[in-house]
Amino acid sequence: MRRARVTALREAVGKADLDALLVTSLPNIRYLTGFSGSSALLAVSARDCVLLTDFRYATQVEEEVGAAATVRIEPSNLWAGLWPLLTSWSGVERVGFESAHLLHRDFTRLLEQGARWQWRPTVDQVETLRAIKDDSEVACIERAIVVAETALQRTLDALHPGLTETAVAGILERHLRECGSEAFAFPTIVASGPRSALPHARAADRLLQRGDLVLIDFGAVVDGYCSDITRTVVLGPATARQREIHGIVAEANAAASGAIRVGMTGMAADAVAREYIDARGHGAAFGHSLGHGIGLEVHEAPRLARTVEAPLAAGMVVTVEPGIYLPDWGGVRIEDDVLLTASGPRVLTGFPRTLLELS
Amino acid sequence: MRRARVTALREAVGKADLDALLVTSLPNIRYLTGFSGSSALLAVSARDCVLLTDFRYATQVEEEVGAAATVRIEPSNLWAGLWPLLTSWSGVERVGFESAHLLHRDFTRLLEQGARWQWRPTVDQVETLRAIKDDSEVACIERAIVVAETALQRTLDALHPGLTETAVAGILERHLRECGSEAFAFPTIVASGPRSALPHARAADRLLQRGDLVLIDFGAVVDGYCSDITRTVVLGPATARQREIHGIVAEANAAASGAIRVGMTGMAADAVAREYIDARGHGAAFGHSLGHGIGLEVHEAPRLARTVEAPLAAGMVVTVEPGIYLPDWGGVRIEDDVLLTASGPRVLTGFPRTLLELS
Repeated sequence: MRRARVTALREAVGKADLDALLVTSLPNIRYLTGFSGSSALLAVSARDCVLLTDFRYATQVEEEVGAAATVRIEPSNLWAGLWPLLTSWSGVERVGFESAHLLHRDFTRLLEQGARWQWRPTVDQVETLRAIKDDSEVACIERAIVVAETALQRTLDALHPGLTETAVAGILERHLRECGSEAFAFPTIVASGPRSALPHARAADRLLQRGDLVLIDFGAVVDGYCSDITRTVVLGPATARQREIHGIVAEANAAASGAIRVGMTGMAADAVAREYIDARGHGAAFGHSLGHGIGLEVHEAPRLARTVEAPLAAGMVVTVEPGIYLPDWGGVRIEDDVLLTASGPRVLTGFPRTLLELS
Repeated sequence: MRRARVTALREAVGKADLDALLVTSLPNIRYLTGFSGSSALLAVSARDCVLLTDFRYATQVEEEVGAAATVRIEPSNLWAGLWPLLTSWSGVERVGFESAHLLHRDFTRLLEQGARWQWRPTVDQVETLRAIKDDSEVACIERAIVVAETALQRTLDALHPGLTETAVAGILERHLRECGSEAFAFPTIVASGPRSALPHARAADRLLQRGDLVLIDFGAVVDGYCSDITRTVVLGPATARQREIHGIVAEANAAASGAIRVGMTGMAADAVAREYIDARGHGAAFGHSLGHGIGLEVHEAPRLARTVEAPLAAGMVVTVEPGIYLPDWGGVRIEDDVLLTASGPRVLTGFPRTLLELS
């Protein structure tokens, strides 16, 4: 499986008229080799695929990488190991690097210590492969969704006025762990009352009150793959206004999840939800994009956004997450994870989208 | 307080013969302005200090930044807002950027869209300021330590054979949240039995067994500041070998914590623990550095490592974390957080360092 990925990358690198590619993005390295450590460089040529890491990962890297790459343990600096490696590769002159994943500091290393090679910036060589999930990747995401939904149900059962948002996050994260989440996809968002109008609030020390909207946005991680789900509930009976806003978002979510198709642009997908919300007078209150790909990272290609002209493809897994945020009143977001197949969208998340009124 | 930081930065920028500095590191931006969002650029000249962020943070940025910077909300791309801003600053020609915090992709923006300015790479302009903590920062770290130690005690009380490492991490993280941790300083490490020999293991699905060494390395976050602590315990009565190895690490930890001083190099600090462990025959099994600064990031300046010749200064807060890792047997690490003062080191962490045998 990983060898097929390296093979596909080699093809892309050849098409870009490069003799080799230096991969510095850790999620890209994980995708290609299975290595999940925090220190690595990967060099891929038509013949070789070599992973450089440090001694701390000596045991782990063997277990994770297997035959996907040749492993070299560097005693001090990974870059110091790169130059002799490249020197040993005869015929390698033009080497690509990842422009979006190389710091200027390291770029200067290429120009100075690596001056004997021709360095060419590349973009999205590995990300383009990653955007299309194979069955094993979809299976990981589905397991991460089951973990997230189970933890969410248990958390909602325990929600009551007087808890802080941070305490709610703690309850949720404990359940995520108990259900087998190996990490958290991103810092858990628990935003209550007027704070739910902040689209990127984290959990804070605000006390939950009866009547609050409570927006919970979080994800689980299973075998490296993320889920990402948002639900917004009410603590107690909902007001007419809360029902109305929630209803609009739920309809926008359903419309977009049902409409996205292979071949549609990210822009057109975004427009489905945006036009629905706009037609109900809240266009200005839906100030972010409709969604993004998920996988080894919780934000990856493709983007479902107003400016994206690239067409969607089968095997992509994207979030669909419309929202309406009204300052000083509150906000509602409903987020699902959707797999695109040749025969249409398949919504992977199954948690109820009706407005839950917790007693 | 934040104004004093910007003033200190202006002085450093002037000394570097620059008219302005573009700050792209989010922790550096947080240090200078208080802004904790995930999307920002900061430009600082002798006269101005302007923070660019996007609409998602419109409410939050006002609350957090106050008078520390002038805030501009950019409708689309932050970079698109940077050029007119710099153009409006007369007399600004030479602009520094952060070489270690600017991606090559964004560096090309400077060269192309920002071609009318002279761009100069800088290193550690803000990090050098951040390395010296003021009283308010030390107070945050101390609160993050109290949270971590309280959560650790509650977790050890609940430890028993049959729990997975992941479940232990969940218990710990739940307590961290209940005690007020706003995030996790880094992915919690719970490594048991032979897995404790992997210095960078995360929590996995291994079941804890009677007799296991259990290494727990984690941190809390309070008002943005991290703590970082490691303890290694035994599930049940310790063997003579477990006692021996733990004792050596505890002695090395105490020796280093007691010996580090203002004016000492990072290398000399590292050597205190390393020579102790080496003299007992385990030098090769202590394969990482002694420690690192903590603050808004869990790894920041200074480093206590074999190659670091810079002297330590008053106000630095560093970890002291010697370890011995024996493949297939297990590992022990004991990590404390230490404040350097003019009158000597002050160990901020107080959790017992004796070998706890949990029944």
